[in-house]
Amino acid sequence: MRIGVLGTGVVGTTIAGKLRELGHDVLIGSRSAGDDAVPFADAAAHGELVFNCTNGNASLEALRSAGEDNLAGKVLVDVSNALDFSQGPPPIVGVSIEDSLGERIQRAFPEARVVKALNTVSANVMVDPGVIPGEHDVFVSGNDDEAKARVVELLESFGWPADRILDLGDITAARGQELYVAFWVRLMDVAGGATFNIHLVAG
Amino acid sequence: MRIGVLGTGVVGTTIAGKLRELGHDVLIGSRSAGDDAVPFADAAAHGELVFNCTNGNASLEALRSAGEDNLAGKVLVDVSNALDFSQGPPPIVGVSIEDSLGERIQRAFPEARVVKALNTVSANVMVDPGVIPGEHDVFVSGNDDEAKARVVELLESFGWPADRILDLGDITAARGQELYVAFWVRLMDVAGGATFNIHLVAG
Repeated sequence: MRIGVLGTGVVGTTIAGKLRELGHDVLIGSRSAGDDAVPFADAAAHGELVFNCTNGNASLEALRSAGEDNLAGKVLVDVSNALDFSQGPPPIVGVSIEDSLGERIQRAFPEARVVKALNTVSANVMVDPGVIPGEHDVFVSGNDDEAKARVVELLESFGWPADRILDLGDITAARGQELYVAFWVRLMDVAGGATFNIHLVAG
Repeated sequence: MRIGVLGTGVVGTTIAGKLRELGHDVLIGSRSAGDDAVPFADAAAHGELVFNCTNGNASLEALRSAGEDNLAGKVLVDVSNALDFSQGPPPIVGVSIEDSLGERIQRAFPEARVVKALNTVSANVMVDPGVIPGEHDVFVSGNDDEAKARVVELLESFGWPADRILDLGDITAARGQELYVAFWVRLMDVAGGATFNIHLVAG
């Protein structure tokens, strides 16, 4: 598949690397291009499916650079988190208790088919869940069921078992996925590093 | 132990019931008293340790009624969540991305030894973790290590295994514990009810 990956940070390069390993035709987009990256708009135009791996604080701006027309009708996998380190670690997480980046992106780009996914684990876990032993879970949300189904397929190709990919409903669930990261930054201390995840167990 | 439980909702009555079953001398406090309940101030004065199980939206007011002097020097276990159902379920959760009830309570009652705990599971799970099979976790945070140790002992008496009671650090971690509930309200749909929890797994 032709895929555009926006963002050249650890998340963007890790996801792009995995997608290429799986045989996809990937262009990485950045604000300034250069090296392995093309401008945001070129990467978005290239992709049948687009990953937003930009810094959450700049995601809306990055997506505007990518261009509304280049996102229209496409599955847009939003992996972003808004992290504010201005008061030092751990960061303040999220955009508001009443909103999320996932929802803001869907509102700003109504013709994109936004799926929030993968933002609840570190980059190495996203593309290789087997680095953590035992069962643990990844989450998707979005308004378009067919778009979610395509993201689920991609996650399965990354190694996520079908029964550990949990569909939380429409894009308003992105609020929970993003605010959970405020918990994640504290769980990290207990886990002894970023290579951890959670597993849902029901009674 | 003499324990005051503030709040006559499901959480307060469930915790008070369990504490009595374990042989503790419990008074339940409410705004209006009556039935099994005494005024907040009487329950707080009675307790060597106090549970805040009031509605998070009214917790600070309830604790002011309980009286600063009746809380000074005592372990105050804060189980509360701020849930706003005004826009219908699922509720908006939390007080802010930059603050928490746990922190607000500690700031308002600097001589109380606030420990945030148990707010991440439903009442039946709080007092009987065995209703969920397998390993799953509960979390404590607070500025006073001795206070946390006493709460950990109580949680163990509720049936929580020592290695599944995770200390997230100082009271600022309450932000993560409370914002996680925005995720919990969506996980509930996947879990098929409120009797579920999460288990931390590290790589």
